[in-house]
Parts: sequence; structure tokens; C-alpha cells
Amino acid sequence: MTVTLNPALDLTYAVDELRPHTTHRVRAVHERPGGKGLNVASVLHAQGEAVLATGLLGRATGSAVQALVDAAGLPSAFAPIAGETRRTVTIADGADATGLWEPGPVVGGAEWDGFVAHYRRLLDDARVVALSGSLPRGLPPDAYAILIRAARARGVPTVLDTSGEPLRLGLAAGPDLAKPNAEELATLLGPGAGPAAVRGLVAAGCGAVVVSRGPRGLLAVSGAGAWEAAPPAAVTGNPTGAGDACVAALARGLRDRTPWPELLADAVALSAAAVAAPVAGAVDTAHYRDLRARIAVTPVPQTEEHNPC
Amino acid sequence: MTVTLNPALDLTYAVDELRPHTTHRVRAVHERPGGKGLNVASVLHAQGEAVLATGLLGRATGSAVQALVDAAGLPSAFAPIAGETRRTVTIADGADATGLWEPGPVVGGAEWDGFVAHYRRLLDDARVVALSGSLPRGLPPDAYAILIRAARARGVPTVLDTSGEPLRLGLAAGPDLAKPNAEELATLLGPGAGPAAVRGLVAAGCGAVVVSRGPRGLLAVSGAGAWEAAPPAAVTGNPTGAGDACVAALARGLRDRTPWPELLADAVALSAAAVAAPVAGAVDTAHYRDLRARIAVTPVPQTEEHNPC
Repeated sequence: MTVTLNPALDLTYAVDELRPHTTHRVRAVHERPGGKGLNVASVLHAQGEAVLATGLLGRATGSAVQALVDAAGLPSAFAPIAGETRRTVTIADGADATGLWEPGPVVGGAEWDGFVAHYRRLLDDARVVALSGSLPRGLPPDAYAILIRAARARGVPTVLDTSGEPLRLGLAAGPDLAKPNAEELATLLGPGAGPAAVRGLVAAGCGAVVVSRGPRGLLAVSGAGAWEAAPPAAVTGNPTGAGDACVAALARGLRDRTPWPELLADAVALSAAAVAAPVAGAVDTAHYRDLRARIAVTPVPQTEEHNPC
Repeated sequence: MTVTLNPALDLTYAVDELRPHTTHRVRAVHERPGGKGLNVASVLHAQGEAVLATGLLGRATGSAVQALVDAAGLPSAFAPIAGETRRTVTIADGADATGLWEPGPVVGGAEWDGFVAHYRRLLDDARVVALSGSLPRGLPPDAYAILIRAARARGVPTVLDTSGEPLRLGLAAGPDLAKPNAEELATLLGPGAGPAAVRGLVAAGCGAVVVSRGPRGLLAVSGAGAWEAAPPAAVTGNPTGAGDACVAALARGLRDRTPWPELLADAVALSAAAVAAPVAGAVDTAHYRDLRARIAVTPVPQTEEHNPC
């Protein structure tokens, strides 16, 4: 099960050249359901895994996201909110992308309580939960901590992928796995933090930490040891969604109790295959299979003062 | 009754400064139902006139427009289409506005036939029809001509406000009134066209032509004569929607058989009051009443070689 508390309708506008203070005819509009948890669900669905996407959707833009989720055949059980789900607009001209992020809805206290009750019911059928992305305004900063504790009370493992205060408070609730990227980890632990600090997170109750470091690959630290793995060659393409594909692999591995070195190789391969796919939430399956067999996982000695960031 | 064949969901994003190839947090999102015919309907509704808005709406963005129309209390009877209604995004930074116009739906032949049948039924209760704006892709360029002929067959007068080929073909169907702006008229008749050419349009079967000339006010040419009128002082504000307020006044005047000089003064006052209002489709009513009493209408001699453009 994936949780997306702040999903979006992602619009991409193709224009010839963005020139401020002029009017542009958009050549093509691409719409997709956005939000990190929905990307995780899309990757798992495309891999043939049984997945359920939940979270919060509101009003007309929420309905548009729901319609796209349904059209993709992705099973979902979102809870309705009164506020309008946000849009993101990405303007792609020949040179680069320009992003516009709507502020999104403000979620009320009763809506959040209703979601927690809804989520607890869904946990009955869940074998692993991925909690991804930012929190909409109005939610308590320990929202992920609440959801992690509810899952643990039912014996369902959790993967947490967020940043800032929701990450810090979520880690305190002891998720089975957290996947910060290097920048999020540096924000959390300070810029000079080494693997000892990451081991500190694990010692404090987080089952394992996987740090995504872009083309340098992944570092995993668990109670049983530390490993790192990177793709055999730099992958060019669209880095958006690589972290979500990584979370998808980690969630599947948690469900299947895949041993660490193998799980890490799978996460590197699925991330790299997502970079090679044109849009977030998609994976180049042939590339994934090819990579999967070629990734070497290296144990990191406990003594090595290697900077994970 | 107003007809909007290519309505839009108009989104305005407030940002601090639009900088291409960066990401922006949108400070505030403003949504409104867009399209010239919907602006005409909004102005008439705000003036307490009984109005019905019709046209074409499709899919999730069409539903969002419908929801905004309903929330405004504006009576409507849109026909559904399979394509997605377009959005427009206006990015307002401190300096100026940047526009992005989606291409909009492609309307099928059967959908157009269905709309014409729907429109014919609605004509039973209409006392005047305003036909405004561009045509979506897929419609015949004589779409407005078809709608004008259908109205005339039932004795319902029509006001046409469009441009290019739909204007040229629409004029040939003999609307009771056409309201090109000066630029649209120059495109139609050539840049040197004078009032003689406008009188030619009237002689060819268009009941009357009102040319909107921005701060220079309106020029009206009918079979009975020609008049011009301008606001007593330049109005500063938002010029978007001034032409639609003008059409609203003209449609009301056609319905009420208001004599020309009085009708023209009303159209100038309502346009100027729309410029003073912050958004298209709204009118500053106090300003309108004040202006209405102060506008002088001047007859234009038939011999005067005055350039209407």
C-alpha cells in the first residue's frame, strides 16, 4: 500500500520558448497523476505487484487525478477532502523546464482523523506500507509518525520517504526503513554527518536507512551491516522518479524479506531503469532486467569513515 | 442566451517573479470560468438579467468550469463533449502577466450536430443570443453562421463577437449585430477601411456593426445612421472583459429594442465599468450608474471619411 497525502495533477506544457510577459500557445499538454507515493504505486503496478494507492484527494482536481489513476488501472482507495488537490505545471521549452507548484489544500483536523481511521482499515489487507512525499498544510508534522505507529501495531512494515520535520518525527516512530536522499540526510544530521550518524539513526529505532546519492548509487545501513551499490555505468535520462522507484523496490523487498545485498541491488537497478524511462512512475523493464544481473553490492566496513552524503 | 463554444478554466498564479528554467512556489491560485460568452453571461447575471449560458464542456476541466458556473449561481445548459475543455494559465508576477493557452479539445462532427439540435431547443426560450469567442478545433468555420441562421428562423436576434474566418462567414449569415474590435475589423476589411466599408457590411445584411476602439470608445453603424461615444475620461484598470461587457449591453438593448444612441451610451458605460472591475466578467455597478448618465453620443455624418479603425 502506498500513501500519498499531498498528490497532484502534474501538467506538462510544451512551448517553443518561454518568454516572460508574453502569451504562449501550448503545443501539447501532458497530464499525469503526481505525487511520490503515486509514482511508487505506478512502478509496482507496472512490475505486476498487487498495490493499493491511498491518500487524500479533493474537488475537481482531485477527481481529475482519480480519473487518471483509474485509467491507468491502478487500484486505489483515496479519502475525499474539501480542499482542492494541487496542480503542478511544468513548462518544457527546447532549453529546460520551468516549474510552478500550487500551494495545495489545507486539510482539516476532522479530515485527518477520518483518514487515519480509513488507513487503519486498509492496513488489514496490507503487507507493507510506503509513506512518501510532503505533507499538505493543516496536517500535524508527526502525521507519518502516527501512520508508522498504526502500521507497527498491526505488524505491517513501513518505508518512509520524506524530508524535514516530517522525516525527523517519522524516524522517531521507528519505521522499518527510511530512504532520505543525501541532501535530506545532510539537513537532518548536519552537513558533516558520516555513516556513524546514520548508524545512530538505526540504533535509535529506525530498522534501516537507505541513502540515495544520485549517480553514486545507494548506501544501506541496517542493524546487520552496511552496503553500497551503484549502477555499472552512469544512466542518462529523467532523474525524477528514481527515488520513488527505489522506494518501490525497497517496499517489495521488505514484504518478501529479501536479504540486504540482494534488496539493495534490486533498488539500484529499478532506480536506474526509472531514470532511463521518459516519465516519473514508469520503468524501462528490459533495462531493469539487464541491470539487475550486473550490479555489485559492496559491504561497507563499520570502521570506514565514509561520508554517506 | 450566451454561446461559448470554446470555454476555458482560467487559472491565475501569483508568483514573486517568473524566472524561466527555475521552480516557483505559487503564492495564490485564482480560478474562474473563462471564455468570452461566459463573461457576457456573468455581466448580465450580475446586472440582474435572466440569462442562460450554453456551449460545450468536456471531461474533468469541463466539470471544473461547470462547478464554478454553478457556484456563481449562473444558469447554464452546456452540452458535453468527449474532449477535455482547455485551461489557460496566467502567471502574474509583480511586473506583468505571462499567458499559457492550452490548445483545447477537438470537437467531433456528431458532437457539433448534437449541439446544434440542443441549441435549437434552447432557442424556444431565448429572446436574444450572444455568440462569442473562438471556435474549438473540429468545428466548421461557418459554425456561427449556422447558429445565426437557426436563431433568425425563430425570430431571435443575435450578437456576434468573434474574429477571422468565423467572423467573415458569420457576417454573411446576417446577424442583427456584430461587434468586432478595431483590429479584427482591419483584418476583415483591410487596414485602410473607413466607415463606408462598415456601411457596406450593414448594406450586405448585418443589422448593425459596433466597433470597439479601446479608450477611443465605440462606433455604431446601422441602417438608420452612425454614432460614436466614449467614456468621459480614460478608465484605468483591467481591459480584459470590456468587449464582453459591451456585448452584454448590446444584447440586452437588442432584446429591449433600445434606440441606438441610448444603447450605445449603455454599452460604453458598461464596458468602462468592466475595465474598472478587477476581473473579466465583473462590473463596478456604482461606476456604471455614474458613467451611464454622463456619456454623450455623437452622430457621425454619412459623408465623414472617419476611419473606424
